[in-house]
Amino acid sequence: MAPKRAGRRRFLTESAALIGLAAGTKSLSAQNPEAPGKDMMPYGERSRFERTARIRLGNKVNMSMHGDPNGYDALSPIGEQIGIITPSAVHFISSHGNPPPDIDPARHRLMIHGLVERPLIYTMEELKRLPSVSRIYYIECLANRPSPGEKKTVDDNHGLISCSEWTGVPVSVLLKEAGVKPGAHWVIGESAEAQRTSRSAPLEKMMLDALVAYGQNGEAIRPQQGYPLRLVIPGFEGKYHVKWLKGIKVVDRPYITYWEHGTFMSNGNTKGQYFMEQGPKSVITFPAGGQKLTGRGYYTIVGFAWTGSGSGTIRRVEVSIDGGRTWNDAQLQQPVLPYALTRFQLPWTWNGGEAVLQSRCTDDAGQVQPTAAEQAKFWAPMGGPHGNMIQPWKVTNDGQVLNAL
Amino acid sequence: MAPKRAGRRRFLTESAALIGLAAGTKSLSAQNPEAPGKDMMPYGERSRFERTARIRLGNKVNMSMHGDPNGYDALSPIGEQIGIITPSAVHFISSHGNPPPDIDPARHRLMIHGLVERPLIYTMEELKRLPSVSRIYYIECLANRPSPGEKKTVDDNHGLISCSEWTGVPVSVLLKEAGVKPGAHWVIGESAEAQRTSRSAPLEKMMLDALVAYGQNGEAIRPQQGYPLRLVIPGFEGKYHVKWLKGIKVVDRPYITYWEHGTFMSNGNTKGQYFMEQGPKSVITFPAGGQKLTGRGYYTIVGFAWTGSGSGTIRRVEVSIDGGRTWNDAQLQQPVLPYALTRFQLPWTWNGGEAVLQSRCTDDAGQVQPTAAEQAKFWAPMGGPHGNMIQPWKVTNDGQVLNAL
Repeated sequence: MAPKRAGRRRFLTESAALIGLAAGTKSLSAQNPEAPGKDMMPYGERSRFERTARIRLGNKVNMSMHGDPNGYDALSPIGEQIGIITPSAVHFISSHGNPPPDIDPARHRLMIHGLVERPLIYTMEELKRLPSVSRIYYIECLANRPSPGEKKTVDDNHGLISCSEWTGVPVSVLLKEAGVKPGAHWVIGESAEAQRTSRSAPLEKMMLDALVAYGQNGEAIRPQQGYPLRLVIPGFEGKYHVKWLKGIKVVDRPYITYWEHGTFMSNGNTKGQYFMEQGPKSVITFPAGGQKLTGRGYYTIVGFAWTGSGSGTIRRVEVSIDGGRTWNDAQLQQPVLPYALTRFQLPWTWNGGEAVLQSRCTDDAGQVQPTAAEQAKFWAPMGGPHGNMIQPWKVTNDGQVLNAL
Repeated sequence: MAPKRAGRRRFLTESAALIGLAAGTKSLSAQNPEAPGKDMMPYGERSRFERTARIRLGNKVNMSMHGDPNGYDALSPIGEQIGIITPSAVHFISSHGNPPPDIDPARHRLMIHGLVERPLIYTMEELKRLPSVSRIYYIECLANRPSPGEKKTVDDNHGLISCSEWTGVPVSVLLKEAGVKPGAHWVIGESAEAQRTSRSAPLEKMMLDALVAYGQNGEAIRPQQGYPLRLVIPGFEGKYHVKWLKGIKVVDRPYITYWEHGTFMSNGNTKGQYFMEQGPKSVITFPAGGQKLTGRGYYTIVGFAWTGSGSGTIRRVEVSIDGGRTWNDAQLQQPVLPYALTRFQLPWTWNGGEAVLQSRCTDDAGQVQPTAAEQAKFWAPMGGPHGNMIQPWKVTNDGQVLNAL
């Protein structure tokens, strides 16, 4: 019998074997009626025992991340995410100072303009009459990067990514109807929010697979994610996925918009530099920073991998339990979808000693997730535009899991 | 230029072309702060403009469906579902008289017993330490069947199906740990609810792909869907997916449990007859019963297809716009996943005249969705166990869509 198997069997029999039927019977029958006055039939809610919540980014963390003291930002509790879909209620938020606009969809319009033959304005109803696609895509803020500083938990270090089923009209459908003029090479996504956020993206990518999305996980996009319309550009940094989308302007060259100028460019880059496609990245979400193992024995190491390069598909995830000396292929959750979170897992029996766990992924472009040292060397002296370095977690003798970066 | 293209272009230019910038600008800038006192940062909610809701089944409809005057049942608003994921908040409910039990997961246990070498009891924490899988599966109540009677809308006729990403432990993992004894052929799923619902299912299917699920769409299963544990048996009738699961009992032969006896057997069948795998089914959800077209011109016909036979995969969906005389292949939304809803669409230009729209699907077992007449003939005189007949919708001259069954 292999050690792994032995460890697993030991866990299962020691802690879960049948001792007596009576002990179980009482707790199994516990039930009460629903809380009076709450009608869960039209639109249900989760159990009152569930407390998973987003973590609001205070001014201090916010300041350290991108110098914005008035952020309206929150981390997704990725350490507690089950499956690849992030519940819309806990999708990460990055809004830099403003709550979401309260948009009446009956009054909202989308304008296609700029270097086009036929400028168009669509109502929501008109958009929904057009051909649509649904795709499971992640969106990740470029600020989602682990650091050796005060960020201790998996949520602190990796909570600015979420994954949803996005439904909407391919941008190519809209631009073909409008007719793109010669000389057009870029597109500006324009937001209806007070800050008038806008972003530049290459026309080629917009025609390939970008969406004007109105649906998220089977219903209308949530206000904090861009209700009623969001520009979704799979594999690109989150900031390109313009929320509360009101316009798509076709132009000749990239604009250096307010948020593309200066401090909010990717780390350390000068104005007008664009880093759009995110590299391969993975993280173990259990056991992970801030969590605690309750005892030695069998565990399943689980985590997520994703990539914005190549065709956006994860080909391989390896996991090390010895600080990177040896690596084991993790099992990938099927189906592995392009530009979606990919779930991986590896059985592990913890012997109660110290261990350093980490994952690294390879995408279908052949790119391999770098270590922090490799990334720092490549991007020296200014630091990389993306935080896709390997995240090591240290398990201590008493089962605590620490950020070992 | 093909007629279809001409029709589409006409819609797009007539109704959406740019008339003047000023008209659009005002509505685009409308925004207000969030309603005071509501903190959407920890756990968000949908926009106040969204009203999509489940439809509670009153006693009358309930009586006609399965003779239960005290049902706690509700239809999912499938006509408004965007994408293949049903939001957990509007997943259909079939509970026959009881609100969901209010189970504390810290006290809940799952018992594996019966014909096994080592009976086991698991806590929720122990279950979550085991290897898991996430799969996007539909669940459909066998009562989900169109009828020519009082059921007029797409929700009335087809709202007892929903599709979620389910995450949990394969039943095979648990049964291998417990050790199945010789002579075992069936399994009883046991519920913690007051009625002590239990169901029989073949051991072979349980070992193949059944799950003890604790996750639904990225978070804990909702109370109405079985919190904290649900037995998920892909492709089987909804009643086999035992909610509030507390036990898996391995047995030699199927039990005739309370709900498998008499009135709640599949339509017209005698006690102890089991119809488990659902046949191929599809329905157009737009334009569909209860909806209204706002004017002639371009529309996208959309709908869902699913099957419980073969490997659960839809191979083809055809759509007819002339009452079944001619059929056109619809486009299938990729990826097409086994035992999941598959989205299909077909462009259509409505000329303002009467039309009868319908879809039919073929699965990878080669089974074709039958017409109501074909089904009635095959299952005469008692009626079929599943309601998977083709659903025709009639579009009237004034754009109303009626049940044409």
